Amino acid sequence: MITLSFDTESGIPLYQQLYSHIKKEIERGNIKSGEKLPSKRAISSHLKISIVTVETAYAQLAAEGYIYSKPGSGFYAENMALPEIKESPSPEIVPEHIQYKYDFRTNRIDTGSFPFSVWAKLSREVLSERSDELLNACSPQGILQLRVKIAEYLKSFRGMTVSPDQIFIGAGSEYLTGLIIQLLGRDNAYGVENPGYRKIYRIFSANTSRVFPIPMDEKGACADAIANFGINILHVTPSHHFPLGMVMPVSRRQELLSWAYSRSDRYIIEDDYDSEFRFSGRPVPALYSMDKMGKVIYINTFTKSLAPSMRISYMILPQELCRRYTDRLDFYSCTVPVFEQLTLAKFMDKGHFDRHISRMKKIYRQRRDILMEKLSEGRLKKFIDISGCDAGMHLLIAVNNGMNQRELLSSAAQQGVRVYGLSEYYSFPVSDMPDNKVVAGFSGLDCQELAEGAEALERAWT
Amino acid sequence: MITLSFDTESGIPLYQQLYSHIKKEIERGNIKSGEKLPSKRAISSHLKISIVTVETAYAQLAAEGYIYSKPGSGFYAENMALPEIKESPSPEIVPEHIQYKYDFRTNRIDTGSFPFSVWAKLSREVLSERSDELLNACSPQGILQLRVKIAEYLKSFRGMTVSPDQIFIGAGSEYLTGLIIQLLGRDNAYGVENPGYRKIYRIFSANTSRVFPIPMDEKGACADAIANFGINILHVTPSHHFPLGMVMPVSRRQELLSWAYSRSDRYIIEDDYDSEFRFSGRPVPALYSMDKMGKVIYINTFTKSLAPSMRISYMILPQELCRRYTDRLDFYSCTVPVFEQLTLAKFMDKGHFDRHISRMKKIYRQRRDILMEKLSEGRLKKFIDISGCDAGMHLLIAVNNGMNQRELLSSAAQQGVRVYGLSEYYSFPVSDMPDNKVVAGFSGLDCQELAEGAEALERAWT
Repeated sequence: MITLSFDTESGIPLYQQLYSHIKKEIERGNIKSGEKLPSKRAISSHLKISIVTVETAYAQLAAEGYIYSKPGSGFYAENMALPEIKESPSPEIVPEHIQYKYDFRTNRIDTGSFPFSVWAKLSREVLSERSDELLNACSPQGILQLRVKIAEYLKSFRGMTVSPDQIFIGAGSEYLTGLIIQLLGRDNAYGVENPGYRKIYRIFSANTSRVFPIPMDEKGACADAIANFGINILHVTPSHHFPLGMVMPVSRRQELLSWAYSRSDRYIIEDDYDSEFRFSGRPVPALYSMDKMGKVIYINTFTKSLAPSMRISYMILPQELCRRYTDRLDFYSCTVPVFEQLTLAKFMDKGHFDRHISRMKKIYRQRRDILMEKLSEGRLKKFIDISGCDAGMHLLIAVNNGMNQRELLSSAAQQGVRVYGLSEYYSFPVSDMPDNKVVAGFSGLDCQELAEGAEALERAWT
Repeated sequence: MITLSFDTESGIPLYQQLYSHIKKEIERGNIKSGEKLPSKRAISSHLKISIVTVETAYAQLAAEGYIYSKPGSGFYAENMALPEIKESPSPEIVPEHIQYKYDFRTNRIDTGSFPFSVWAKLSREVLSERSDELLNACSPQGILQLRVKIAEYLKSFRGMTVSPDQIFIGAGSEYLTGLIIQLLGRDNAYGVENPGYRKIYRIFSANTSRVFPIPMDEKGACADAIANFGINILHVTPSHHFPLGMVMPVSRRQELLSWAYSRSDRYIIEDDYDSEFRFSGRPVPALYSMDKMGKVIYINTFTKSLAPSMRISYMILPQELCRRYTDRLDFYSCTVPVFEQLTLAKFMDKGHFDRHISRMKKIYRQRRDILMEKLSEGRLKKFIDISGCDAGMHLLIAVNNGMNQRELLSSAAQQGVRVYGLSEYYSFPVSDMPDNKVVAGFSGLDCQELAEGAEALERAWT
């Protein structure tokens, strides 16, 4: 049980004192990762404070990521346990509870660089300017001002010609993917890249009964192999494959389009999730732009380019599918609040979005460079092979030091580093599962952490 | 083509002048309802102004509901044509384009009474207090502070005992209904009330292949009739049926629960969409509270109680389904921005929500009273029979003057009044379709408009 004596003279609210105490206990490892916290009632009666005080402290801890709740069970200290891999880890080398000092997660972005004060200022302007608009429902597709700005951005940045009427704004790509499935129909055979973004596989599985793997080769999704399962809708990430990192060459894009053109029920969903962060060479045009027959649905998000808390994504439908959407699905209200839409439209209109992207690109490029440089010098140099580094926020590292994936992760963990085994990204098992490759995201760590993390990996793997 | 000469001396921006001009033309009927507006390019070249100016004017008109866009087609003046009913309206009595002076829509709320300045103040506080929390993703269920506030509200207002861990926040009931279908499975046989909320039927149809009607009797959803289609999941509105308006008596609630208890795959989705606005008698307990076996999923929304632009709804899952959710669907991010969640939590915490609800209840009760009083006096008195008036934001009016539904709507339309035929709410045709009943929402009109609208109905129907 948690024990502390409250300082009633300090003027610091009780909940704040409780919060600080538990936070420290977790940081010091006195409360272990994954350990269940006492119930609110228990703490309240033990420390003679109100349940509301405990609730507020827990809420703060949860909001800051120190603890998390399991429905029907209670609160737990944030789980730092090793990623689940198929083979059970051998107890000698995998400590049970690890405080990772360097977590190369792929889904973290550098929110510290977000120009929050600008955003807050624009938010305040929106609040003071437009009370009527803020309270009434907008078009099911989202407010026109924002769709106009998105169309302009896609034109100048991505060379795409899109009418605002084709743009549909929604609360996250996950939500929009669900809408696309409703639009195209649950009875289609959907193909997802294998390996790929596991969440995409889970969304399709939760919504349809026919989801099949698309095997990958060095150019990306393998057009030849699609026929095997009767797949007629592809979900692909041609700008930067997740997690293999390749940029799909134009030749393969044309193969995929030819495939789609050859039957009326074939479509391609192009997830352009991190195309903003391309570091070298000329950007390859979006599949959407190459498509002459209305076969490509384009989807992109502001979650990666702004902040994870902003659930604003959009999809672009070819004209024929726009009409189908109007017929079948336009009863759905837009899921993004008008307030966020107006603020983002302003943010884009005043050039802040372009500036932010170009700034983040510099920051992420620098981080990538540091990580690659550090990994490629010293003892590690001769063992590793880095790929997928032309774009995005993660690298794929093949380690040829004789360790298998489990050993790579365990030895990294012992040095306080969390990297991710490539096998985790396979939604479907394959016979030739790679066993020496790890994925390392670099967007959530700063340059010094990246350098230190790379040094720790050198200690782990050499 | 639209013609106007801009006043370049006035200091009024060009887009504003264009906006005002088109708005007036629509209001005067010079641009007919449903008429296509010239393309932005055409206006731009015709009036020698930039496309952006036209876009901004159109955006403003669209935001205020004067025009709407059809994807791939262009902009149209807001459609004021009669609601579609099965029989084609006879041209003698149904004018093609009607400017309704009094629209008794059921989905409008009185946003003018929303304490926007309080909301804006709290929003500003959130912006200045919590930049980190605002940028990072929250729990997939929504922020704990808000779930705690919702649980407190349900306890004090609805007598429901709910743990914040069972509450899932999402961007609208439509979205949450989609999640429920993913949670329970698409292969279930879903039953929707007939008549009922058409959108609910459309959501189920878009997501599953087995949707069947639940017939209604005077107590609400008819438990006896469910067996016919092998329905195992019910969607019901027991607090206030939409559109019939009855409050389901406890006896019927118990019948439905017994039905659900008798098989493990049976569940009830209780949509409590306007339970806040109950005007008379003691509130009937929620089905959720009566349930002893974890068979009821409760769903409610802030869209009706705050503003349509705020897409914040929540569902409460019984413990067993919470666990199933964690297993299957917890990869979905919360679709409501953290900013809105924090603001709403503050709004509730400081008592503004309770005060707002109690104020709106008074306003809506007064509107209901005026409408009922005006309809029940004078010549109309002996022809009409009003029901469904104990709660919510609409009435059901049976008119026994010999007119059928089409004639009732047409004659009302000729007096500038839009009411809605009950037959529109039947997703499934029935043999004994009522032909003399109309639905009138009173939440979007003020007292004077309601009184004038009722007088116009008297002229139309007597």
